[in-house]
Amino acid sequence: MLDHTILFMQIDTLTIVGVGLIGGSIGLAARKRGIARHIIGVGRDAGSLQRARQTGAIDWFTLDLLEGVRPADIVVFCTPVDKIARQAEQAAAAFKKGALVTDAGSTKANIVRDLESRLPAGVHFVGSHPLAGSEKRGSDHANAELFNGRITVVTQTARTDRNALERAQEFWKALGSEVHVLDPETHDHALALTSHLPHLVASTLAGIVPPQWRPFAATGFRDTTRIAAGDPALWAAIFRENALAMCDALQRCTDRLNEFRKAIMNDDDATLIELLSYAKRVRDALGS
Amino acid sequence: MLDHTILFMQIDTLTIVGVGLIGGSIGLAARKRGIARHIIGVGRDAGSLQRARQTGAIDWFTLDLLEGVRPADIVVFCTPVDKIARQAEQAAAAFKKGALVTDAGSTKANIVRDLESRLPAGVHFVGSHPLAGSEKRGSDHANAELFNGRITVVTQTARTDRNALERAQEFWKALGSEVHVLDPETHDHALALTSHLPHLVASTLAGIVPPQWRPFAATGFRDTTRIAAGDPALWAAIFRENALAMCDALQRCTDRLNEFRKAIMNDDDATLIELLSYAKRVRDALGS
Repeated sequence: MLDHTILFMQIDTLTIVGVGLIGGSIGLAARKRGIARHIIGVGRDAGSLQRARQTGAIDWFTLDLLEGVRPADIVVFCTPVDKIARQAEQAAAAFKKGALVTDAGSTKANIVRDLESRLPAGVHFVGSHPLAGSEKRGSDHANAELFNGRITVVTQTARTDRNALERAQEFWKALGSEVHVLDPETHDHALALTSHLPHLVASTLAGIVPPQWRPFAATGFRDTTRIAAGDPALWAAIFRENALAMCDALQRCTDRLNEFRKAIMNDDDATLIELLSYAKRVRDALGS
Repeated sequence: MLDHTILFMQIDTLTIVGVGLIGGSIGLAARKRGIARHIIGVGRDAGSLQRARQTGAIDWFTLDLLEGVRPADIVVFCTPVDKIARQAEQAAAAFKKGALVTDAGSTKANIVRDLESRLPAGVHFVGSHPLAGSEKRGSDHANAELFNGRITVVTQTARTDRNALERAQEFWKALGSEVHVLDPETHDHALALTSHLPHLVASTLAGIVPPQWRPFAATGFRDTTRIAAGDPALWAAIFRENALAMCDALQRCTDRLNEFRKAIMNDDDATLIELLSYAKRVRDALGS
């Protein structure tokens, strides 16, 4: 599943729809690694696209989605997860024959289901999710090494075109990523536990401390709640797009919280130490 | 409640019971700031006390609790929270008349209730909790600036001796802390939400990811679960000592998780954004 080989890829035109932190970093990484001769940015805000052009993330930009995707060999949608499928469908008639359409969304099942069935013949969608990011936003924070050594999940279903899947893997490897192939549902359940639930829980912890007690929040609280500073609209969309897996993850979480609660109420030192020791082993294995 | 004044204090003998990260840092800070002419360490492991003496955290040490506390003007118990009250009671007959006995435990109500009533006349206990620490352990990681600019909570009840309370405040201020005075129950409820529950939740998140999905844990997961690397026995004791406040904190937590779950199931974007935005404002106000 894992392949550390660094590949080189050269295409004519790469179009990035949504040139923020992720989109901008894709542009910078593609330029640095010589992946595309032309990099086009598509967005809604000319000022922000202008800045992305100045940093070198894109060569030129347009506010017209269809114009932007028309010449592209690869199109990457880096817009919020609840917009990707609709935008790609809107652009359907403009994609070049043989184009690879992919994305960078944090949820996959809905997007892949919608797009694998709805794009024209000869245009192939492969879902992608680079596990890289930050609570920062915007192409001003983009960097060419954002994907370097990070995992990108690329999705495969019974409908996925084998050649397009290979090109999507090559693309992310060429940007510096390690690529894992998962089916979209497995991706969504895994990421619910490793990313979406931690965000929800960080927001919960930050939100339930009464104002007068906030001065007593020390470094542990800061670490645990750091990701609660992320963009509310983006995360609300991720939770809604990944609703089923989130409900499952929340159930696992509340079940474990209940185990802790019972052990505390029963003054059950052995169970508490067992639960805490298991978590410590998992966390120690991750490294700092 | 908050006083930034830096005070200087000079006593003859300071005894530290339990010379680990916190106890060792108290010794180093007291030496650097010239607070005590003699600093005695009490512990169970001569090798570890020997190392603490080499770093300058203590001048000499003993494995005999009574011998260690006898000459002390101030005694600080830095042992696990479920041991402090029992050890202080064991040492009761040896404390010098007029001695201030305090501690550095993360829970306060049980310890203060036990010790304010059980020490001999003329020996005064005042509960303390410096909000400083780390997932690291041992006097090898101690440092003289651990308390600098950090809050220390000092407890006051109807039984607390006013003069002893003032000396406890002076002591922690002299070590570099900002001192807040709280009643022990308020301390325990506040810290349950700002420290103990975050630890329990970090352990929950680390513990519920199936092994095959752990590769998909990225930086957000690392931040959120970092404190789960703390010592299981220490934290089990904190949870048990703070059982009532922990149950209350867990209830607030699961109530909020349920609000999130309902909003997700109802595809209720407005509520999700409201919950996430509130948490973001709280977290942004804390700084990085």
